[in-house]
Amino acid sequence: MKHALPVTRAKDFAAWYQAVISEADLAEESGVRGCMVIRPWGYGIWERIQKLMDARIKAAGVENCYFPLFIPLSFFAEEADHVEGFAKEMAVVTHHRLKNIDGKLQTDPDSKLEEPLVVRPTSETVIGKAMARWVQSWRDLPLLTNQWANVVRWEMRTRMFLRTSEFLWQEGHTAHADEADARTETMRALEMYRDFAETELAMPVVAGEKPENERFPGAVATYSIEAMMQDGKALQAGTSHYLGTGFAKAAGIQYQNQDGQQALCHTTSWGVSTRMIGGVIMVHGDDDGLRCPPMIAPHQVVIVPMLRDTDEDAAVIDYCDALAKDLGAVDVFREPLRVLFDKKPIKAAPKRWGWVKKGAPVIVEVGGRDVAGGNVSVVRRDRLYNEAGKLASEVMARDAFVGAVADMLRGVQDSLHSGARARLEANIRRDVSELTALAGAFGGDKPGWVEVEWSKPTGPALDKVVAWLKGEKLTLRNVPMDATPASGTCIFTGEKAVERVLVGRAY
Amino acid sequence: MKHALPVTRAKDFAAWYQAVISEADLAEESGVRGCMVIRPWGYGIWERIQKLMDARIKAAGVENCYFPLFIPLSFFAEEADHVEGFAKEMAVVTHHRLKNIDGKLQTDPDSKLEEPLVVRPTSETVIGKAMARWVQSWRDLPLLTNQWANVVRWEMRTRMFLRTSEFLWQEGHTAHADEADARTETMRALEMYRDFAETELAMPVVAGEKPENERFPGAVATYSIEAMMQDGKALQAGTSHYLGTGFAKAAGIQYQNQDGQQALCHTTSWGVSTRMIGGVIMVHGDDDGLRCPPMIAPHQVVIVPMLRDTDEDAAVIDYCDALAKDLGAVDVFREPLRVLFDKKPIKAAPKRWGWVKKGAPVIVEVGGRDVAGGNVSVVRRDRLYNEAGKLASEVMARDAFVGAVADMLRGVQDSLHSGARARLEANIRRDVSELTALAGAFGGDKPGWVEVEWSKPTGPALDKVVAWLKGEKLTLRNVPMDATPASGTCIFTGEKAVERVLVGRAY
Repeated sequence: MKHALPVTRAKDFAAWYQAVISEADLAEESGVRGCMVIRPWGYGIWERIQKLMDARIKAAGVENCYFPLFIPLSFFAEEADHVEGFAKEMAVVTHHRLKNIDGKLQTDPDSKLEEPLVVRPTSETVIGKAMARWVQSWRDLPLLTNQWANVVRWEMRTRMFLRTSEFLWQEGHTAHADEADARTETMRALEMYRDFAETELAMPVVAGEKPENERFPGAVATYSIEAMMQDGKALQAGTSHYLGTGFAKAAGIQYQNQDGQQALCHTTSWGVSTRMIGGVIMVHGDDDGLRCPPMIAPHQVVIVPMLRDTDEDAAVIDYCDALAKDLGAVDVFREPLRVLFDKKPIKAAPKRWGWVKKGAPVIVEVGGRDVAGGNVSVVRRDRLYNEAGKLASEVMARDAFVGAVADMLRGVQDSLHSGARARLEANIRRDVSELTALAGAFGGDKPGWVEVEWSKPTGPALDKVVAWLKGEKLTLRNVPMDATPASGTCIFTGEKAVERVLVGRAY
Repeated sequence: MKHALPVTRAKDFAAWYQAVISEADLAEESGVRGCMVIRPWGYGIWERIQKLMDARIKAAGVENCYFPLFIPLSFFAEEADHVEGFAKEMAVVTHHRLKNIDGKLQTDPDSKLEEPLVVRPTSETVIGKAMARWVQSWRDLPLLTNQWANVVRWEMRTRMFLRTSEFLWQEGHTAHADEADARTETMRALEMYRDFAETELAMPVVAGEKPENERFPGAVATYSIEAMMQDGKALQAGTSHYLGTGFAKAAGIQYQNQDGQQALCHTTSWGVSTRMIGGVIMVHGDDDGLRCPPMIAPHQVVIVPMLRDTDEDAAVIDYCDALAKDLGAVDVFREPLRVLFDKKPIKAAPKRWGWVKKGAPVIVEVGGRDVAGGNVSVVRRDRLYNEAGKLASEVMARDAFVGAVADMLRGVQDSLHSGARARLEANIRRDVSELTALAGAFGGDKPGWVEVEWSKPTGPALDKVVAWLKGEKLTLRNVPMDATPASGTCIFTGEKAVERVLVGRAY
C-alpha cells in the first residue's frame, strides 16, 4: 500500500519523524543554530495546548506573571547544586551594541557588560528573588505563580520539538509555608500533567518519581510523566519538582508565621514544553502523517471543495459556506467546533492529502454530486483506509453529518487514546528479574520498557547502576505511582527490593 | 480630599505614574538592568489585550507562527537601511557556556561563538528568510503571519511599560503580490489598532502617517496611532509599516506570477506591545490608582466580604459564593463576566482600597447587614466619590445588581472612553500658524498637541525642522488620516502647505 509520506515508521523511525514535521508543515530549520521556526499548524497545536493547560493552571489558583529573559550571572552562583547542573551550556550575553568597524558590522568592544547576562534556561533564581519581595507573612502563602516563556539551553545535538536550543514552555513556581503543602502542590501539578496528557493529548503516560540521578539540579524530589513512542522509546513529557528549602534559602524567601517567627518557605516548580508536540507526533502519527487529537487540532473539521472551473463551482462554494457556518455552531468538548473551509486555489486531491498529512481529524469533501444529493463525503483521519486498502470516504447526508460530527470527533479522540493506551500496556514487561535478561529484553526493534524491582540505591551505588545501564543504552525512567509493591530482590544490587522502577531507552 | 496614592497627577506626573504601577501591583523592577517583572494584575491585563487582539488578527486571516529569539549578525548586515536604524543598541550573545574558573563562575572563553547572535529587536530579517522559503507562486500570496514574542532593545533610560530593554509584543509580517495589496494590509492593521485602542482600551487615538524622519528603518511608509496622556504628552501606541520591496529583495522573497514571471513581493509589518499598558495607565488612571477598562480588566467585578470573626461570617461567605456564581453566569461584551470573590485573609478596608488602586471596574462589598437585607454595596471605579467627596457606595438589591451589572460594566467602559475622548479633543489646538506661537503654545503644564499646516519637507529641509522642534523639546507625531486638507502656508518653511501634522511632546 502506498502512503503519503516518503518513508515509513518501520523503515526508519527517525527519518519518518522528520518527514511528518516537514510534510505536515509543523516546523522547519530556521538557519539559526539549534532553533526552529514553528509553522502555523505546529504553532496552532501549541496554542491549543497553551489554552487548555492555562485553564487548568488558572483553575488551581495559580496566577500568571512575566519575569526577565536575562538572568545576571551572579544569580546563578547563589544556589550551588543548581549551578552545578545548569551552568554548562547556556547562551551568554556579553555586549550590548553592534558597530560598523572597517565597513563590517560587528560586536562593539566598547559595549562590554560589567556582568554577563545568561539567557534563562529556567527561572528559579530570578523568580526566587521576586518571591522574597512578595512573601512577608503567612497570609501571603501559598504563593502560586506561572509563566509562559521561551527558554534557552545550548544543545549540541538538536531534534525538532524534542531538543532545541530555544523552546517554549510554562514554568510554575510556588512557595509554601511547609513541606506538606509544597509536596501536595508538587503532586497536584504532576496529576494535572498526567490527566492533561491522557485527556487533551490522548497520550497515555506513566506518572512517577525520577530516581536521584535524574533529579532537577537542586531539587529534593523530581516527578515526571513518561510517554511511550511508537518505537518503544520513552519521552519525558513533563516534570514537577519539590525543591525543599534550598532555593528559598538562596533567594531569601521567608515569612513570619502565625506565632510571629521567621521561617523559610518550601518551594516547587513544574513545567511542560513544546516537547509535548514531539510526543504527540511519535504517539499518534502514522505512515500518512500526523493524526492530531481533536482537542488540540487547530482545525477539527476541514472542508475541501471539489471545483472544476465550471458554473457548478458557485453552488459548491455556497454549499460549503453554509456547511461551515452550521458546523461552527456545533459545540464539542465544551467549545465551539473549529472548522476551516479551505479556499486556497489548488486542486482538491493535493489539498485533501495535505490535510491528511497535517492530521485534521475529519476531512469533508464536497463536489457537484454531493451538492445535488444533499450529501458530504467524510474521511475520518483515525480510520483512513477501508479493509480493501482504499481511502475510506463515506457519503453521508449533510444534515446527518452535522448532527453526528461532535460524536465523531469524540470518537477520534477516544480511538487515538485507546490505541495508544493498548500499545503502552502491551509493551511494558514485568517478568524480568535477572540482569542478563534485562539487557536481552531490549534486543528487538521496538523494545518497550521493563519494570523491575530494585532497592533504590543512592550515591555511588546508584552511579554504578546508571553506568551499567548506560553501557546498554538504557536509562531509569521513573518509579510509577501506581506500581505494585516490591516483594523480591533488587535486579541490580541483589538486596531486598523496596519499589519498582521503569527501565527503557529514551529520547 | 485624601486619595489612595501617595502622590497626585498634578503634583508630579512621573512620580504618580510609578506610584500607580507599584500600588496597583502591575510591575516592578527585577534587579536585571532595564527588565521588569510583570506582576499578576499587570500580566492579566496583557493576557486580555493578547486575547482580544489575537482574535482580531486571526479574523483577518493572519496565522500565528514562532521564529527564533536569536538572529545571526550576518542577517542584519543584509538590509542596509534596516541595519543603520537598528544596529545600535542590542543584546549580543557571544558565548555558550559558563565555567567555574578559580572557584568563580564565569563565561568560558573556549565557548566563543563563531558568529555572534543578536537577541531579536524585531524579526523582519529572520521572518523574511522564512518567507523566501514559503513563497513560490502567486497562489501562496498573500502570506499573512504574526508572532507573539519578547524582544530586546538595549535602552539606556528605561521606564516601566513605556521603554524597557525587554518587552512583549506581537509583530505581524505579511508578503503580497503588489504594492496596492500590501498598502491595503498596512492600512487594515492600522485601522485594527485604532479601533482596538478606542474600543477595547477605551483609549482615543489619532491614526496617521509618521513623517519621514520617524519611519521604521527600511520602511517606505510608517503609520501610527498616537494617544494623549493626561499630562498632554503623546504616546505612540502602535505602528504599521509598508516596507516596499526592500526587505523582499534582501531576503529573496519572490514569486512566480500568473504570467510565469518572477517578481519581488511587497511586504508589511505591524506591532503593538506592553507599552499599551503604560498608555492605559496614563489615560485612565486617577489619584486613587488605575481605572481599568472593563474589557481588559482581569476581574471585572470583585466581591469583598466584610467579616468580623463571628458566627455571622459563614452566612456572608455563603452569600458571596452564591453571588459570585450568579455573576459568573452573566455575559458582557460577548464573554462570561469575570468575577473574583476575594477570600484573602486581610481586613475589608485595605482589601477594598487594594482593588480601588488596581482599578477593578466594580467592587461589591457584602457585610452581615447586606445579607440580612438581601442587598449588596456597590462601588463603581469610574465614579468613586459622591459630590460630598465621600466614597460613593450604593446599596442595591442583590438581584437587581445581578440584572444590572452588564449595563454597569458597559457604562464604565463608555464613561472612561468618553472622558478621554473629550480630553483629547479639548487639547488639540488648530489655531497656530506662526513658529513663535508654536513654541509658546507648549508653555503650560499640560500642553496638549498642536496641529499645523506644513509643506511636508524631506531630507535636509526636514532635518532642519526636526532640529528646531528638538530645541523646544517637541516632536512631529503624525499626519492624521482625517485631518482637514491644508489651505495655507507651511509654518516651518513658508512654502505652500500640503497637509496637516501634529506637533507635541512625547514619551
